[in-house]
Amino acid sequence: MDIEFLDDTSLSESQIATSDQSLEDHSSDWGTMPGEEHPPDVVVWPESTEDVSSVLAAANDRGIPVTPYAAGTSLEGHAVPVEGGISMNMTRMDDVLDVRPDDFQIDVQPGILGSVVDETVAEHGLFFPPLPSSGKISTIGGMIANDASGMQTVKYGEIHDWVLRLEAVLADGTVIETGSRASKTSAGYNLMDLLVGSEGTLAVVTEATLELAGIPEQIWGGRVVFPNRTEASAAIADAVRSGVDVAKIELIDELSAAMANRYLDADLPDVPMAFVEFHANHHVESEIEFFRSILAGYEVEDVQIAESGPEMERLWEVREEMASALKQYDPDLTMLTSGDVTVPISKYAELIDHISTLEAEHDLEIPCFGHAGDGNIHYTVMVRRDDPDHRALGERVDAEIVHHAIELGGTCTGEHGVGRGKTAYLPEEFNQATVDTMGRIKETMDPNGILNPGKLF
Amino acid sequence: MDIEFLDDTSLSESQIATSDQSLEDHSSDWGTMPGEEHPPDVVVWPESTEDVSSVLAAANDRGIPVTPYAAGTSLEGHAVPVEGGISMNMTRMDDVLDVRPDDFQIDVQPGILGSVVDETVAEHGLFFPPLPSSGKISTIGGMIANDASGMQTVKYGEIHDWVLRLEAVLADGTVIETGSRASKTSAGYNLMDLLVGSEGTLAVVTEATLELAGIPEQIWGGRVVFPNRTEASAAIADAVRSGVDVAKIELIDELSAAMANRYLDADLPDVPMAFVEFHANHHVESEIEFFRSILAGYEVEDVQIAESGPEMERLWEVREEMASALKQYDPDLTMLTSGDVTVPISKYAELIDHISTLEAEHDLEIPCFGHAGDGNIHYTVMVRRDDPDHRALGERVDAEIVHHAIELGGTCTGEHGVGRGKTAYLPEEFNQATVDTMGRIKETMDPNGILNPGKLF
Repeated sequence: MDIEFLDDTSLSESQIATSDQSLEDHSSDWGTMPGEEHPPDVVVWPESTEDVSSVLAAANDRGIPVTPYAAGTSLEGHAVPVEGGISMNMTRMDDVLDVRPDDFQIDVQPGILGSVVDETVAEHGLFFPPLPSSGKISTIGGMIANDASGMQTVKYGEIHDWVLRLEAVLADGTVIETGSRASKTSAGYNLMDLLVGSEGTLAVVTEATLELAGIPEQIWGGRVVFPNRTEASAAIADAVRSGVDVAKIELIDELSAAMANRYLDADLPDVPMAFVEFHANHHVESEIEFFRSILAGYEVEDVQIAESGPEMERLWEVREEMASALKQYDPDLTMLTSGDVTVPISKYAELIDHISTLEAEHDLEIPCFGHAGDGNIHYTVMVRRDDPDHRALGERVDAEIVHHAIELGGTCTGEHGVGRGKTAYLPEEFNQATVDTMGRIKETMDPNGILNPGKLF
Repeated sequence: MDIEFLDDTSLSESQIATSDQSLEDHSSDWGTMPGEEHPPDVVVWPESTEDVSSVLAAANDRGIPVTPYAAGTSLEGHAVPVEGGISMNMTRMDDVLDVRPDDFQIDVQPGILGSVVDETVAEHGLFFPPLPSSGKISTIGGMIANDASGMQTVKYGEIHDWVLRLEAVLADGTVIETGSRASKTSAGYNLMDLLVGSEGTLAVVTEATLELAGIPEQIWGGRVVFPNRTEASAAIADAVRSGVDVAKIELIDELSAAMANRYLDADLPDVPMAFVEFHANHHVESEIEFFRSILAGYEVEDVQIAESGPEMERLWEVREEMASALKQYDPDLTMLTSGDVTVPISKYAELIDHISTLEAEHDLEIPCFGHAGDGNIHYTVMVRRDDPDHRALGERVDAEIVHHAIELGGTCTGEHGVGRGKTAYLPEEFNQATVDTMGRIKETMDPNGILNPGKLF
């Protein structure tokens, strides 16, 4: 590809790279299986809305694909430039633009890391509740692109609940403003929530106003140990359905716990557990007592809940690093998928039982962990390396889990997004007319199809 | 208009009316000023998704406008069929389809009254938190169309935060499915939140899954009396900014209080007040104590907060009927507008002061009440009947309030929607490119422009 057209943009030389290393660095993300990498023709690093706008306008005129890239932590291949063209690396646009503690608001550029937002507002006693577990290494822009969520979603909601306003650039370079710094608005179509979760296929976000919450005065947490997955998932679902005000409630199964022990020195029992956390400004013990009263109806081997301290912080670190521990699962096995199905909470135990049944039936290992309080599970089908038959079996089992989750009234992806990996499930989850409607909106907003082609559809 | 084409639809005779009374009944809503009524050519009452689909398909083929109608409580003329055609009355589609208390969910048809939802789920200890003050007389479909909100939004959020899933019919009769019964999803574009707040201009909603919350075990509330609006608005904003966990915090000014006394036998002091309510499952007094500690920094004449009882219920009834009391304000005066601006909470006192200044400067009466905790105010500019100059003055002052709210980072409408009344402000609040983008989405989804023409743009 001839990149001379970039001379017409506001970019300087230091914002453009075509070295092999740069292209390789932008050819994959966390969700890319070996052999599925694809390099861009050029990488650009915009430093302003004007840069984004001028690159998009120039690319749009020429029909050149543009795939936004930031931390590369997407799990469904979102950031892979499957048709080449431009990889637009947003990480230089990582400024805090304004903090307004009186309004519980911060304005940021999209390339900022989630944890930097938290660090910036901590001095005001505030935090950004919906950060995903990857918040220390992933960017706000990426979270917006996927409508991410995290461990605290069970209490506080998803990314889209905490984004108040977006500035974004359309495919033709036009800058639009969506949402409001007011806490609510009914002014016109909600373009903001159309952009949130659109995976870089409708526009490139250049600025976001995020809402913040007050850091609770009391943070207590710990772990509950169960004899098996069935009992763990049933107890967790019951607690949520009973209205226990829990800030985090994660399922960690025996296989995940074993990996955490081996690779993260976690010192956990090798049995299914719930990791929990409670947030309150006063009388947190009353809520924990309520939680214990629900647990009393289940087989529970051990409950340890206490005021937050180093031990609990270590527990959450282990949870955050679970995905990387799983990557080292077994040298003979490779991770096939990163499951992300989510079902209504009343169906959660049934979903987990179904996974366990398939695991036994096909003699597979499928470690499971995730945001149980949301009805969300991250299951990972492990398959033998260089064994196409085993891989095919794993793929069939994975598809069966997704089909079953959709049958239970659930979704193929609770927070990871569609990317390349989940496109086939959309017509099943909605209907074909709905997916066609999404397609028409894509065509309207990006008529030349330059924005992250090959994803979501 | 020849209505023979309705023979091609699934409607029976009892679902079609062209009587003068029917047409007149559907020619206005609460936001229609005298002289701005417009009748439809025919009224239809669909009873199923199929009815909606077949009417839309037939109308779309012929380019006949279709304006959805339900309770007619919209405040910006949304339900007025300004180009004639079909008024589609949704009130016969008012069934509860399914209640799933274990998932905190209910499936309903759009014509159901808000209060009926609450009554239906109360036996399970649940309620629907974002109901607007008009919830006893307005429908869920109308609330979805406007992305309404209400007194409890300060704690619980807006309608769109509590809608999980929508079935809707596009202009050509196609049925789409959006959202999920899972508590969260990242599957494809968020068409659901595009439909919520689209005022019947993109699709007709035929089914909704609503999320519910547990009725709190403790409900306490009461009123705080202030010497003037400035002190009231500053104290309320400070309480919200300080993170007081309040479930309702409403500003009622001296003019509104006087109307409530005269027409609702309210027995209130004729001074600005905050009506407040607190929800908790235990230790509600701790939060009220925190609220009192914030009030200590302001001039407060009286604080009465107690456990909920008949006296408090009466207070909230008065608040809900405030709009109708204002309609009887003064036989010589008429209500010009129902203001709905919303600003970041740190600007709320400045907004209220600005309204008071304009009121004094132009010798107007502008009663104010509203959801202060959200930064939202419903101000009403009163003008002399049959005095075009006074009306013109009122319109200028109203516009000045909206401009100022937008300058403060706010929105022209927090919850009432755009309808006919607020269209001019959208390019100012966003930018023209943003409004054009909304227009392109409208053209894509409704190419013949049949759905509620003349609104929002």
